[in-house]
Amino acid sequence: MQELAEYSSLIERKLSEFNFPNTPENLYDPLKYFLKLGGKRLRPVLTLLASEMYGQPLEKSIHAALAVEVFHNFTLIHDDIMDQAPLRRNQETIQVKWNPNIAILSGDVLFVKAYQLLILQEEQHLKELLEVFNRTAIEVCEGQQMDMDFEVRNNVTVEEYIEMIRLKTSVLLGCALEFGAIIADASVQDRMNLYQFGQNIGIAFQIQDDILDLYADPDKFGKQVGGDVIADKKTLLNLKALELSDEVSLGLLVNLKNETDLNKKVERTRIIYDQLNVKAACEVIMEHYYNIALMHLNKINTTESSKSILKQLARYLMTRTV
Amino acid sequence: MQELAEYSSLIERKLSEFNFPNTPENLYDPLKYFLKLGGKRLRPVLTLLASEMYGQPLEKSIHAALAVEVFHNFTLIHDDIMDQAPLRRNQETIQVKWNPNIAILSGDVLFVKAYQLLILQEEQHLKELLEVFNRTAIEVCEGQQMDMDFEVRNNVTVEEYIEMIRLKTSVLLGCALEFGAIIADASVQDRMNLYQFGQNIGIAFQIQDDILDLYADPDKFGKQVGGDVIADKKTLLNLKALELSDEVSLGLLVNLKNETDLNKKVERTRIIYDQLNVKAACEVIMEHYYNIALMHLNKINTTESSKSILKQLARYLMTRTV
Repeated sequence: MQELAEYSSLIERKLSEFNFPNTPENLYDPLKYFLKLGGKRLRPVLTLLASEMYGQPLEKSIHAALAVEVFHNFTLIHDDIMDQAPLRRNQETIQVKWNPNIAILSGDVLFVKAYQLLILQEEQHLKELLEVFNRTAIEVCEGQQMDMDFEVRNNVTVEEYIEMIRLKTSVLLGCALEFGAIIADASVQDRMNLYQFGQNIGIAFQIQDDILDLYADPDKFGKQVGGDVIADKKTLLNLKALELSDEVSLGLLVNLKNETDLNKKVERTRIIYDQLNVKAACEVIMEHYYNIALMHLNKINTTESSKSILKQLARYLMTRTV
Repeated sequence: MQELAEYSSLIERKLSEFNFPNTPENLYDPLKYFLKLGGKRLRPVLTLLASEMYGQPLEKSIHAALAVEVFHNFTLIHDDIMDQAPLRRNQETIQVKWNPNIAILSGDVLFVKAYQLLILQEEQHLKELLEVFNRTAIEVCEGQQMDMDFEVRNNVTVEEYIEMIRLKTSVLLGCALEFGAIIADASVQDRMNLYQFGQNIGIAFQIQDDILDLYADPDKFGKQVGGDVIADKKTLLNLKALELSDEVSLGLLVNLKNETDLNKKVERTRIIYDQLNVKAACEVIMEHYYNIALMHLNKINTTESSKSILKQLARYLMTRTV
């Protein structure tokens, strides 16, 4: 979306202007490295858009926006340790390029940096911003813990999975938008509706992510199609397939876990999912959350034109191919 | 010190009243466990004492005091992962009783909890408290990184070591006292002097810790005397010994690193240190920081009687045997 490029460039520029100390090198070099890896910068853009919707200039919300992005990066650094991920955006993760201890500690510092950014906001909003931020930070950790717990469980339900992605991913989108509303002194109703818009679009976005993993166009996707299937990851596709399976397809899916020909594993999984109409079932759930998100956006008490960029963004997130 | 017991019991009671959620169990059970392991609760007591010195009731500073203690425990949880420590206060560390991932994540949640406590303080002090807290949190991480860097270096100087313990340990004592001053609306001078008292007593305290490791009375010490020597840990004793050594004693000390009879290793190290007068040299440095601490305490603009408990505490910390 071209309209968003100027907002994300602003975030990118501000991130590059961070003035980390030079020493200890092993603490700050990883952070300089990690923040240069790029990303969509979706979350901070949401904060900017929400406060701009009420006529606030971007300077008014920039620190809160950066706090959200910095917090998000902190969670990625710690998640990469927990997931033993070798790569992040096709570059080595901190725990590989340095080591896990350095990743723990530089992550901790980045978390403090988020709070340092947040308290640069006007003092009158500080307490409210911090309340929302603290609550969100704890929820994100709860979501990550649920995700780890799910790895060793065989009875995860679709409802539990949705709750996990709500906490791990979506509440931060809600928080980013709520920040904008707080800074713009929006009404309590608007604030709540913006939060709910963010949370529900976040859930829909994550479901879209799960679907794209197996159903993206390989030429456009930029990473291996079927990565979640190969890793036997619990996703909505996977849980929905188990829910819809009869004994025969269940047996086939269980057997596929041991398939060593990875192309065959992905291909056969897709065939079974298609027979079960898994993709359509997931799209129904995705649409459900997308519609809830739009309902909340419609309730917000500003002009249609000021809401249109958030509406476009929502539509864009749902129709992306990568 | 009997006078402090009522303050630390208050902290202990408030910690036990924390109302953590029940789920995810793997996130919150470790925190409930860790906060029950006990400890001196020295840091939060400093906050209570500092604000009480200006006639403030304990309720006025309790949340900030708890924030300091909770932050301290967060750092212990993450340090235990980095140090691969099996035990903390003679009980299994979280990363042993659960696993390192759970220790990372429950530590992160505890860090947020510290901020949640801090924002319960009166709004008028919030920004100042957060500025001090953020700065301190970053410094503590820097100190931990320096400590890890030192492990693989052979040219650490006494000055670098003091800077490391200042950051890793002492600034948090300074922060705890400064919190009390901020909450009591003390003057900028008093606030600075309380911080410096805390920071310098902290350095003296840590040096005392290093000395006790090898020179404590084994009957009173409660843990193995010479633990740092056995682990070849860099301490002030060790660095000072290297500084004071001639070639002969240097050779002996280097050889002792490979000594497998641990009692012999501790005993012979102590003999060499005694010949070099290492203990006395460290005590000179300790007294230096102790005196700076007292100088700052004396400058504080309150009655002698209201300062006396901090003076007693300082004396107690310097004469402890465990």
